[in-house]
Amino acid sequence: MNKMIGEQTIKFDSKPKIISSAAIVGPKEGEGPLGEYFDKVLPDSYYQEQTWEKAERKITQETIELLMQKANLSADKIDYLLGGDLLDQTITANFVARKFARPYFGLYGACSTMVEGMILGAMLIDGGYGQRTINFTSSHYQGSERQYRTPNEYGDKYPGYKQWTVTGSGATLLAKDGQGPVVTEATVGKVMDLGVKDPMDMGAAMAPAAADTILQHLNDTNRNPVQYDLIVTGDLGEVGSKLLRELLEDKNIDISEDQDDCGLLIYNSDQGVGAGGSGCGCSAVVTASYLLPYLNNNRFKRLLVVATGALMSPLTFLQGESIPSIAHGIVIENDTQNNAIGNQEFEQRQKANNSNGELNR
Amino acid sequence: MNKMIGEQTIKFDSKPKIISSAAIVGPKEGEGPLGEYFDKVLPDSYYQEQTWEKAERKITQETIELLMQKANLSADKIDYLLGGDLLDQTITANFVARKFARPYFGLYGACSTMVEGMILGAMLIDGGYGQRTINFTSSHYQGSERQYRTPNEYGDKYPGYKQWTVTGSGATLLAKDGQGPVVTEATVGKVMDLGVKDPMDMGAAMAPAAADTILQHLNDTNRNPVQYDLIVTGDLGEVGSKLLRELLEDKNIDISEDQDDCGLLIYNSDQGVGAGGSGCGCSAVVTASYLLPYLNNNRFKRLLVVATGALMSPLTFLQGESIPSIAHGIVIENDTQNNAIGNQEFEQRQKANNSNGELNR
Repeated sequence: MNKMIGEQTIKFDSKPKIISSAAIVGPKEGEGPLGEYFDKVLPDSYYQEQTWEKAERKITQETIELLMQKANLSADKIDYLLGGDLLDQTITANFVARKFARPYFGLYGACSTMVEGMILGAMLIDGGYGQRTINFTSSHYQGSERQYRTPNEYGDKYPGYKQWTVTGSGATLLAKDGQGPVVTEATVGKVMDLGVKDPMDMGAAMAPAAADTILQHLNDTNRNPVQYDLIVTGDLGEVGSKLLRELLEDKNIDISEDQDDCGLLIYNSDQGVGAGGSGCGCSAVVTASYLLPYLNNNRFKRLLVVATGALMSPLTFLQGESIPSIAHGIVIENDTQNNAIGNQEFEQRQKANNSNGELNR
Repeated sequence: MNKMIGEQTIKFDSKPKIISSAAIVGPKEGEGPLGEYFDKVLPDSYYQEQTWEKAERKITQETIELLMQKANLSADKIDYLLGGDLLDQTITANFVARKFARPYFGLYGACSTMVEGMILGAMLIDGGYGQRTINFTSSHYQGSERQYRTPNEYGDKYPGYKQWTVTGSGATLLAKDGQGPVVTEATVGKVMDLGVKDPMDMGAAMAPAAADTILQHLNDTNRNPVQYDLIVTGDLGEVGSKLLRELLEDKNIDISEDQDDCGLLIYNSDQGVGAGGSGCGCSAVVTASYLLPYLNNNRFKRLLVVATGALMSPLTFLQGESIPSIAHGIVIENDTQNNAIGNQEFEQRQKANNSNGELNR
């Protein structure tokens, strides 16, 4: 009953199905090239709440409600919730889990949380411990900046290589039975650290972890990058994506034709977002509202999502530490004629969307 | 291949083995009734480091090294690490995981982290996703007080119902094969909240979650409390333990003869620790160094450990929120003649120990 292939990759023979996905984003994300794809775009960052933290919670709660509604399931049909976020003590996830009152695993994987949750969800189902899991995550630009760097009101000038934390929440519903793209493999990441100390430069800190996980995954599966329609990293942004390609070139792996990054997909270059998007919400909303429907529409057959997380805190920065990072990879495939995740809706949105929203392949 | 019994309980047919456990504690914990049982007692809270956070990291790292050494295994034989702690962004666990460079799942379950990690570790092994997992957690009194309440140097007076955060790290090594107590069942908890708002009163906040998980577990397994040698809660302390018994009495369940609490076991009542111990380290070190050897020595046949976590943050308190809590339960049994975890050593320690260290049954 060994389900490992190679050294570090899991094979899910039962192919857990992603029967629903949902994402709600903030106004800036709504103005980006993927704006049409998200289930809901907020008019402002407070969303009628008094604090950003409460706004993030409300967005996340609504995302999960929408996720279940799309699958026509109520909370009592969900066996496990898996959630985490960037706020101290992952309060968004914990307070949202309270609302739904289902068995809950709290996670901390920084911006890798979406894929960490999907991997554990797929294991719970594939292993026979449940029928349905929901994994969710979120981030909020203003709340995150205040906690990690300085409140926006201080007006600090940031370097161009800094990334912009996505306001939004994404979630997926995995199930033993049903229709939708399937989870076939996962490569759980190791914590890496090449010594980057600048908390503005997260892409550079996370690139070595992404490179390690991709390399391990390709070795374990004995595949080439071209065997994926897309290898999509979580939120390396411009700086980190360039570094990732260089790190892999050193190992004679060329992913330049096959890789894209959620942090680059989510914003237009003229939106003033530095090196691109980041935050738990980044890979979550792009995967939930854009990549999964893409798979579902037979545009893709096989996708490798590699979500990256920078595992430092403001305190470790002040204590002179470098930034450890992690990257978890998950393979999602289009299996036969599954088309649960809003096929027609996706086509309509793509028509309404500007051409930037079309992946270039 | 359904491994669920009842509504919320998992049955591990393959019985993952706990082949090693280890714990290192601070000086106050060393002076308590279980002092002789821990693998190492620190002379002071800094442990030759410049900050409490770095001390916590060092303790945790050494605990894992000791854990592997006891099992005569090197890090490359470990398939997964599962870790978490109380510090913002779980920096202890993340930085420690960097050191060992193995596939890593970051968790946040507050003081329930030890059991959350053991449950997921048991699933990874039982499900066939790996052969060996290490789960670890830690807390540090001074670091924790500064982050959650006020720095000790301010000299705030605390109410008697406040609990004392344990300085220490505990870890267990689960394996498909080997000798030691076995994990047979788990009940994953739901987030509960009965409206307690006082961050000094964690025991009261966590008691409803513990009651819910214990009740669910007994229902699912169709057992009575007397069918366990001990039901041990994580860190409810005096206030929370009393409330737990009352909550269960309301449901006609009497656990008064069968329950104990790690927060009460770890300190003597004259140590000035308020209502007892708490923190991720509390249930971790008591389980690793005391309860597991107890099982291993045939003193116990079946143990239910219910680790409890308060899922708030200082920010949610300041924003007027109550304290959501969670409790995860795990059943550990003595299976045949397994005696991996220091049988003789345990007997010697018990001789050296004062009578307080003897569980009253």
